[in-house]
Amino acid sequence: MSELRIVALGSPGEVTEGSDLSDLVMAAARERDLVLVDGDVLVVTSKVVSKSEGRVVPFDGSDEEKERLIAAESRRIIRRRGGLRITETRHGFVNANAGIDVSNARPGTAVLLPVDPDRSARGLRARLRERHGVSPAVVITDTFGRAWRHGVADVAIGVAGLRAILDLRGRPDQNGRVLEVTEIAVADEIAAAAHLVLPKAAGTPFAVVRGLDPSMFGPGSVADEIVRPPSGDLFR
Amino acid sequence: MSELRIVALGSPGEVTEGSDLSDLVMAAARERDLVLVDGDVLVVTSKVVSKSEGRVVPFDGSDEEKERLIAAESRRIIRRRGGLRITETRHGFVNANAGIDVSNARPGTAVLLPVDPDRSARGLRARLRERHGVSPAVVITDTFGRAWRHGVADVAIGVAGLRAILDLRGRPDQNGRVLEVTEIAVADEIAAAAHLVLPKAAGTPFAVVRGLDPSMFGPGSVADEIVRPPSGDLFR
Repeated sequence: MSELRIVALGSPGEVTEGSDLSDLVMAAARERDLVLVDGDVLVVTSKVVSKSEGRVVPFDGSDEEKERLIAAESRRIIRRRGGLRITETRHGFVNANAGIDVSNARPGTAVLLPVDPDRSARGLRARLRERHGVSPAVVITDTFGRAWRHGVADVAIGVAGLRAILDLRGRPDQNGRVLEVTEIAVADEIAAAAHLVLPKAAGTPFAVVRGLDPSMFGPGSVADEIVRPPSGDLFR
Repeated sequence: MSELRIVALGSPGEVTEGSDLSDLVMAAARERDLVLVDGDVLVVTSKVVSKSEGRVVPFDGSDEEKERLIAAESRRIIRRRGGLRITETRHGFVNANAGIDVSNARPGTAVLLPVDPDRSARGLRARLRERHGVSPAVVITDTFGRAWRHGVADVAIGVAGLRAILDLRGRPDQNGRVLEVTEIAVADEIAAAAHLVLPKAAGTPFAVVRGLDPSMFGPGSVADEIVRPPSGDLFR
């Protein structure tokens, strides 16, 4: 646990509906002379996952169309200002404009978030195992704004083979006292870490994180572990 | 920018008021056979910074004393539940119990956040340069809960020699269009990344992040760049 490596893989070129991301990941890793192994975490930005799943819709750039798309992807609109909406998506994520993205999309189109990003992560992991014989954990990321703090950061929207939350409750601290608040959102920290090597404009949707503690691996889900029911949330 | 290394340094042992963190960092790095260089980022948890600055107060463990300490460190209390307070600290940070920590503190004491963590970071950076001839960027971190998402993550509370926000606005995306929301909170992403090698119970307050893009370095401040004036914040 004392050393991590985070490696950005090269761009896979244009991803379209039906593209097999497992093949693209393996090709990008080979080009980087990197052999993926179990115990690695493969980080994938949501954009290419969405494109491979056909979550691309026509978008004429008009305010009306944007409004309609955002409404269709959201449970509710939390705030509005100008063209910006803070939304609670159908997944329960709170983000800007329901995560709908027109940057790095073909002109005349917009990219929606995957319908079920945990399922997407499990699917990619299964494909890697079946076709390439390797089972890294998978984290699907997107870039979110935050309450209380300026700037955006990458977070996890789906995981497979990784605990989204590492629960250290009950472990003693250095003085033998039991720790209090120790449910660490490791999936979000991995997403943030990978974002440091994935500058948005550079078109590199894949990164590999190597060296994580084995305790972080296991069955996990962003929807079940990280999405917070409004009733229990004192921070909002 | 395509590869990062994150290395946890060993524990410096007990830190007390007046401890020179620059010496402790250099000793911990030597033990790890790591030679700090300009372009590295040194990540330091707030706890040891506070201890070295004497931000340790008597604490009898009573609810009344806790309430009094939290009030003294806060501008306002945002929410209360049981013994938990969500606070806006005098720095403008929104966190639990004003960041006051009794874990890894000596029995009968509590550790407060540094008074001015940006200043603490600049001070440590200056000491490293003066005493050891090296100028890594410095990030001071603490563990915060978040709105909307379960679990805690490390964030930056002070920086030196690093832009807290990397502003990519105006850079073209792959299709030549100008990116929209691209103020990336890189200081928080670095804090989160380092937390992956700094498990709370292991007593390792120092990590080194190597390989960041040169565009991330320069004068920076968490207080000026990341702390968000309530009026502009649609996410809360």
